[in-house]
Amino acid sequence: MSVLIHNVLIPDGGSTTSASVHLKGDRIHQVYFASASIPVSDDTWIDGRDKLLLPGFVNAHTHSSQVWQRGLIPQLPLELWLADVFDSTPTNLEQFYLGAVSTAVDTLLSGGTCLIDHAYVVPGQELETVAALVKGYKQVGIRAFIAPLIQDLPFVAGLPKGCTLPHHPYPRSTTDILSLMEAIIKQFHDPDSGIYIALGPTGFHRCSDELLVGCADLGNRFNLCFHTHLLETRAQQQLAQERYGETAVQHLQRLGVLGDRTTLAHSVWLTADDIAILAQTGATVVHNPVSNLRLGSGIAPILKCLQAGVNVAFGCDGAASNDAQSLLEVVKLSTILHTITDPDYQHWLSPHTVLQMAAQNGARGVGLEQLGMISSGNIADVVLYNLAHPSLLPCNDPLQLLVLGRPTDVVERVWVNGKLIVEEGSVKTVDVAALHQELRDRTRYAQSHQSLLLNQIETHYRQMLL
Amino acid sequence: MSVLIHNVLIPDGGSTTSASVHLKGDRIHQVYFASASIPVSDDTWIDGRDKLLLPGFVNAHTHSSQVWQRGLIPQLPLELWLADVFDSTPTNLEQFYLGAVSTAVDTLLSGGTCLIDHAYVVPGQELETVAALVKGYKQVGIRAFIAPLIQDLPFVAGLPKGCTLPHHPYPRSTTDILSLMEAIIKQFHDPDSGIYIALGPTGFHRCSDELLVGCADLGNRFNLCFHTHLLETRAQQQLAQERYGETAVQHLQRLGVLGDRTTLAHSVWLTADDIAILAQTGATVVHNPVSNLRLGSGIAPILKCLQAGVNVAFGCDGAASNDAQSLLEVVKLSTILHTITDPDYQHWLSPHTVLQMAAQNGARGVGLEQLGMISSGNIADVVLYNLAHPSLLPCNDPLQLLVLGRPTDVVERVWVNGKLIVEEGSVKTVDVAALHQELRDRTRYAQSHQSLLLNQIETHYRQMLL
Repeated sequence: MSVLIHNVLIPDGGSTTSASVHLKGDRIHQVYFASASIPVSDDTWIDGRDKLLLPGFVNAHTHSSQVWQRGLIPQLPLELWLADVFDSTPTNLEQFYLGAVSTAVDTLLSGGTCLIDHAYVVPGQELETVAALVKGYKQVGIRAFIAPLIQDLPFVAGLPKGCTLPHHPYPRSTTDILSLMEAIIKQFHDPDSGIYIALGPTGFHRCSDELLVGCADLGNRFNLCFHTHLLETRAQQQLAQERYGETAVQHLQRLGVLGDRTTLAHSVWLTADDIAILAQTGATVVHNPVSNLRLGSGIAPILKCLQAGVNVAFGCDGAASNDAQSLLEVVKLSTILHTITDPDYQHWLSPHTVLQMAAQNGARGVGLEQLGMISSGNIADVVLYNLAHPSLLPCNDPLQLLVLGRPTDVVERVWVNGKLIVEEGSVKTVDVAALHQELRDRTRYAQSHQSLLLNQIETHYRQMLL
Repeated sequence: MSVLIHNVLIPDGGSTTSASVHLKGDRIHQVYFASASIPVSDDTWIDGRDKLLLPGFVNAHTHSSQVWQRGLIPQLPLELWLADVFDSTPTNLEQFYLGAVSTAVDTLLSGGTCLIDHAYVVPGQELETVAALVKGYKQVGIRAFIAPLIQDLPFVAGLPKGCTLPHHPYPRSTTDILSLMEAIIKQFHDPDSGIYIALGPTGFHRCSDELLVGCADLGNRFNLCFHTHLLETRAQQQLAQERYGETAVQHLQRLGVLGDRTTLAHSVWLTADDIAILAQTGATVVHNPVSNLRLGSGIAPILKCLQAGVNVAFGCDGAASNDAQSLLEVVKLSTILHTITDPDYQHWLSPHTVLQMAAQNGARGVGLEQLGMISSGNIADVVLYNLAHPSLLPCNDPLQLLVLGRPTDVVERVWVNGKLIVEEGSVKTVDVAALHQELRDRTRYAQSHQSLLLNQIETHYRQMLL
């Protein structure tokens, strides 16, 4: 593969500049700026006029199987919403495969080239579930981190004090869960083919210290990422104080599980001390603004995190809490939302900054430093946008239009690891029409329902948390 | 025109039901529910399977000429942003015509059938500007309220105390402005052809009491709507106290300008007393959440307004502060944003509620009670959505998918006043490709600039308001 994208706009400081970009093998071989002469060759030549080339974004938190729950679960706070989600999670492996394909397609067509799937796995069929996800991601050709959701405490343990529901012990032992993760790592972790297994304890609120430390140890042994939910809700903040007598971040630091390969989804309820710890340990905060508003979780202190030097990346979160799966929507909302947390506009996020966070900070979060920038020698995970699309007119500032507008169908081509995955706006590695047919055939305007578990915990929730 | 839309989903309580809807002339002639037998006739017959029919939304606040400033103005608070907007407002009448066409197209393709254009008018060419807008809206066939932006105080008067910039008097007298408005009304107000002139004093902050009362009097004489900006920023709240010694809402009520044909854009900085006054007078709050976040104006107290019985509708606001012009984006953000203002999820907005607000409350705001519901005898301003579109898959709750997803290209047909305006997803009354070509040809990746006026007031702004 050798392609020359001629005279295309690329980011340059807070603005854009015209350059010609040579992709060769799995790399951005060379970036030629205006004055440079481009050696003649027999490369495929792409006219870059009215186009913008950006490094691929990282969708640093999603749950692929929730594709089936898009438009299904009512607006509820996390603790109640989750009860509803558990009740309607698919159990059919084919649905997991299709969920992975759908999530990959949505990520690619909204500017992403890499994702972290904090993946539900069917109990008793964990290896088979991961195999189904791997099959989907490999077929599409996206770079995928799969972090199976594991826990060793029951649902009710994740609620603060006062819940009168019985605490049934979790059906699987911590040792068994860690052995299972080791088997998954050995069977599926395969960076050369773009598949990475990560450790994904669901969150401190439903994990013992033993499980969290065990995951960190596995991560260190196999050189893997550690991905977890952190302080998504006020209830979790309260629970940490009750259980540990300190904040969740202080506790995780004490356990030694925070490091520069750690990605922490949400991180809404952080103290100033927590933020300092995250900066010091090099951990990454994954901001999921759509999901946080949808579930009423609050506004993560993203401006304060950035000011303190914390690495902040973006995620869509699963389709049950973000019924769209558009990274472009996530970067827009992130850009406009945080104005209300700080009146000084000089601290607000610019389109340039959020694009950098989406690509470079995301790549840093998963330890792939050679991604996230259009520069010679980097890995070719890049996205070509069509600036002539009506949703990006008139032709004003391209970065601002992309971030602050509502671009649709603007992703024209995507290369992952130098391989062309999207062409003329369509994913060409899988049969997308067949995927859509499956999504239709397996559902039929189901109305949202109230789950039994939800009914059980609602009274408690209202007494304790409102 | 006589059309039968057979077995289509329509809203029914918080859910949907299947019905057949007969459009005839300018009316929804009859709605036949499942059990009813439909008389045989030679109507055009549309298969409603996998489709949803909703009343058209009202885009109750926008500024059409700002289409040219989409993706141009950086993220700044209103007072500074406005200086930049003034400096780059178009002055060419053709651009105003094209701006109206573009705004109408964007409104239609995101579910709207009616808009309020709080319209910039070229000084000295006011009648000609309105003529250009009227031409655009009539060609497209959308229902349009044109409220020319008028003021009789200078820009600097709209800032709170302490500004050291000179207060040049406004170049036109209040009497002259009111005479001009009367001329515009007499020449252009024409409800039968879907064109309504409204009174549009820019906001109390740049209008004398004389102008505000004069507008209300004209409104009463000619039976017109009154549309104005209200308390968009904290600075305006401060200014009202300085100038009147009471809140802006108390002052407007004292002037007698609030009534059930009054639409108040933004209304972010309301007190509890203000909200009670708005409920009592029957005035409508127009919520513009995208613009409010983009400019850091804050979060309007929408849940409190609704609880107090205030009529709340939605607006996109102009493209300089909402670089998209999608009503579907506005209803989504409204649905998820207000969770952070109230922890009790039983107060949160549901998809059903926001759709009702977008259509019925909008229609009520402009005094058109026969719009906003799919029911026999109502005026046929209706929108047919394609639920089979990939962005609305899988087939779960259609209202939730439409509101909480990120639907694109889902508006299939639109009728305004019974006339088919959009077919197969395209506006068929104007040459949209030619519009896009104009938007491209007249702009060329202009970088955003800093205006002279902005530089003049920035020091003052930082001293007074941060």
